[in-house]
Amino acid sequence: MPLPQPPYYAVIFTSQRTAVDAGYGSTADRMVELAAQQPGYLGAESARGADGLGITVSYWASEADIAAWRRNAEHQIARDTGRRDWYAHYTLRVAKVERAYEWQREDGPQDPQA
Amino acid sequence: MPLPQPPYYAVIFTSQRTAVDAGYGSTADRMVELAAQQPGYLGAESARGADGLGITVSYWASEADIAAWRRNAEHQIARDTGRRDWYAHYTLRVAKVERAYEWQREDGPQDPQA
Repeated sequence: MPLPQPPYYAVIFTSQRTAVDAGYGSTADRMVELAAQQPGYLGAESARGADGLGITVSYWASEADIAAWRRNAEHQIARDTGRRDWYAHYTLRVAKVERAYEWQREDGPQDPQA
Repeated sequence: MPLPQPPYYAVIFTSQRTAVDAGYGSTADRMVELAAQQPGYLGAESARGADGLGITVSYWASEADIAAWRRNAEHQIARDTGRRDWYAHYTLRVAKVERAYEWQREDGPQDPQA
């Protein structure tokens, strides 16, 4: 994803999956697609390791945009199903991104923030 | 990790690995161990999927603590090696955590933020 100019918001969602898989993948894919259609959506990144611990960070222009996404009916149903079936534990944090930078191999080996 | 009381800081490090593995695992483990000894360290969570995309979020009491960890000599060497060998691309964001909550299965299925 391209780097938006701070300040903006990050929703850091850390979760531990149960062994119950029914519908998880398709719902996760659908939530990514649906989130991308919401006002203020700036992008998202997700990783889950073999131990079942996953981290999804989504980025939003404002707190109001995060609140509106939270009220989305389909998203509410997905969250309810998550608590019923898919998650053993989760943590959600809302954080204001103050600065950001990126590096890629083509930039060469020097520290981009030196 | 226990949930600290906001506000505090999150360093969101998203990275794409190369195919070069030499020393990566042991250095990553060492950095987790070393970070945990630094002043202001509040915890960290990490996940990497089969596609090589990883997200590590570390939590810190203040921006000054993040800056001090950045100056740690062993950490600097690990970062240099990361750019030389292990990473194709990375993004780093510093964000101020404003609110946080957690849910676990024992809490029951209701929305913890309803």
